[in-house]
Amino acid sequence: MKYIVGVDLGGTKIATALFDTSTQLLRKMRVLTEPRDGADAVIARINDSIRALLSGAKADADDLAGVGIASPGPLNTRTGVVNFAALLDWHDVPLRDRIHHELGVPVWLENDANAAGLGECHYGAGRGARGMVYVTISTGIGGGIIIDRRIYRGWHDSAGEFGHICIEPGGRSCRCGNRGCLQAYASGPALAEIARERLAATGRSSAILDLAGGVPDRINALILEQAALQGDPTAIALWNEMGARLGLGLSILVQLFDPELIVIGGGLSKAWPLFRDSTLDTIRQHIYKMLADDLRIMPATLGDEAGLYGAAALVFEKLGIVMPASEQNVSS
Amino acid sequence: MKYIVGVDLGGTKIATALFDTSTQLLRKMRVLTEPRDGADAVIARINDSIRALLSGAKADADDLAGVGIASPGPLNTRTGVVNFAALLDWHDVPLRDRIHHELGVPVWLENDANAAGLGECHYGAGRGARGMVYVTISTGIGGGIIIDRRIYRGWHDSAGEFGHICIEPGGRSCRCGNRGCLQAYASGPALAEIARERLAATGRSSAILDLAGGVPDRINALILEQAALQGDPTAIALWNEMGARLGLGLSILVQLFDPELIVIGGGLSKAWPLFRDSTLDTIRQHIYKMLADDLRIMPATLGDEAGLYGAAALVFEKLGIVMPASEQNVSS
Repeated sequence: MKYIVGVDLGGTKIATALFDTSTQLLRKMRVLTEPRDGADAVIARINDSIRALLSGAKADADDLAGVGIASPGPLNTRTGVVNFAALLDWHDVPLRDRIHHELGVPVWLENDANAAGLGECHYGAGRGARGMVYVTISTGIGGGIIIDRRIYRGWHDSAGEFGHICIEPGGRSCRCGNRGCLQAYASGPALAEIARERLAATGRSSAILDLAGGVPDRINALILEQAALQGDPTAIALWNEMGARLGLGLSILVQLFDPELIVIGGGLSKAWPLFRDSTLDTIRQHIYKMLADDLRIMPATLGDEAGLYGAAALVFEKLGIVMPASEQNVSS
Repeated sequence: MKYIVGVDLGGTKIATALFDTSTQLLRKMRVLTEPRDGADAVIARINDSIRALLSGAKADADDLAGVGIASPGPLNTRTGVVNFAALLDWHDVPLRDRIHHELGVPVWLENDANAAGLGECHYGAGRGARGMVYVTISTGIGGGIIIDRRIYRGWHDSAGEFGHICIEPGGRSCRCGNRGCLQAYASGPALAEIARERLAATGRSSAILDLAGGVPDRINALILEQAALQGDPTAIALWNEMGARLGLGLSILVQLFDPELIVIGGGLSKAWPLFRDSTLDTIRQHIYKMLADDLRIMPATLGDEAGLYGAAALVFEKLGIVMPASEQNVSS
C-alpha cells in the first residue's frame, strides 16, 4: 500500500496524480475528457490514467491504498453518485462504484470546489490555517468551507454554494434558473456578457472590442483582463464593478463564518490585481471593524493542481494518514 | 459536584437556573439587571442569584461543577471578557473571571444567540438534529450556528452575525454603523420605524395608529402584530415585507450552510404565522430546488429559556457530561 491517487475530473480535462503515503506528489498526467463520448468512455479514461500512473511507477492496483476524485456536481459523497454535471452531461452516474469496481480499492468522491479548498488549506495558500473559505471564480463561482481542516459539507452535500447566493433580488438571470445570483455578476461569462451589453449601450470605442477582433461574441474574461491592463476605462470599470459584487458576497461570508482566511482561486483569480481593491473596499464597508482590521484574503497558490491535492488530502484524511502541514500547525 | 448553573444575562433581566448533572432543570429565578447601577452591581446580582439557587437546594458552591453564562457581546470565549455590550453599557468586563473568583468553580462564557441556539439544538426545536442554524429576531437579529451539536464560533468568536449581512447595498442605516443590514429591515425596532414612515407617507388611517393611541412613537412590534391580526392591510403588508427580507437572508444561509434545520426564535418569532408564508416563498425562490423540497424551518420551542438551557449545555459539553438528546440521536 505505497500509493494513493488523486483525480480531478473537469469538463475539458482529466488530471490525475500519484502520491506516496508520505503525501508527496510523485507524478501526474492529464488527458482530454471529451464528454461527448459518454460517461463510460470518460470513466475508462480515468481508469486508464490511474493505471498509466501506476505502471509508470512500476506498480499496480495492489499497491494502491485509495483514490480520491474531485468532480463537478451536485453529487452525493455518501452514495458516491454524481447527480448532475452540466459540462459532462451526466445524470446520476455512480462514479465512485465504477472506479472501485475496476480497481478494487477504496474510492472517495468530492465536489470539485470543496476538494480544491481542502487542497489549498493543506498544501496551498491556507497552509497553517485551521479553517478557511475557498472561493473559486471561473465559468461559475463555487465555494469550499473548511472547518478544523476538514470539508464542511452541510446536510445535502450542498454547503458553500457561494455563486448562488442572491445579491440582487430580481436581478440578472442565472444559469441555475434563479435571478440575482452572485455568479450572474462576477463569473467569467457574466463579466463578458455585461461587457457586451455595456459596449452596445454606450457605442463607445474600446480596446475590448479591438482585442476581440470586432466580434462581441469573442469577448471573454481574458480579453477584459488584457484591455484593463492596457488602461481601457470600460474594462477597468467592469473589473471594479465585479469586485464590488464579489466583495458584497464575501462580506456576507465573513459575517456568517468569521473565517480565519479567504482564498480566491479559479481562472479569474489571475486577474486579482484588477478587482482586489474594489473587492476589499466593499467587504470592509459591510463587516464589523474588528473583522475588517484583521481580514486575510489572498489568491490561491496551487493553480489547477488544487483539486488534485484536495482529492489526495481526502484520501489521506479517510485513511488516517497525517498530512505534514496539519502536523506542523495543530493548535487547540 | 451535584449541580451546574446556567445564567442568561440580558439588558433587562438576569435569569439563572440550577441543573443536576443528569441535565434536569431543578429550579430557576429571575432578577432585574438594572445595568445603570454599573457592572459591579450586575455581577453581584449574578452571584447572589447563583447563591440563592444553591441555598434553595440546600447546597453551596462546593456542590457546583460549573457555571455557563450566556451574555450579549461581542465577547471573547477564550479570555472570558465581554468586549462590548450596548444594552449593559459594558466595555471589556472580565465577566468569567469575576464569577469564577467569587465562586471558585469553572465558568464558561458564551454569546447569547449562540447559547440559545445550542439550547434549542439539545433541548428544543432541534432535538435530534446534528446541526442547525438558530436565528433570533427581537430588538436585534442574531444567529447561532450549530455543527455536530456544538457551537461554530469562527476565528474571532464572531460567526453567525446574521443580522448584519448586507441585503440592500446603500439601504437603511443600521445601529452597527453600516447600511442595508438585514437587522435594519426585519428586527422589531426596524419594523416599527418602517411602519411610522409608511403611515406618515400615505396619511392613511390604520388600526396601527389607533392601537398606539395616536402616538407614532408608541408603535412597536406587538402593536403591529395586533393590527395585522385585526386585518389591518398596512400591518399585514409590513409583516409580508419583513418576511421577504428575512427570507432573502435565510436563502443565503441555506445556500452557504445547507443546514439540516433552521429554528426561528426571539420575541418576534411569536408573530411567525404573520410572516411565515412570505419568508418561505422568498427562501424557495432563491435556493436550489433540491434544498427547497426538503426545507425544514420552524419556530423555537424553549421561549426565553433557550439561553439558560444553552448555557447549561455548554457546561455539560465542557465537563464531558452526555446530554440526553445527543445520546439518543448520535449517528455518524
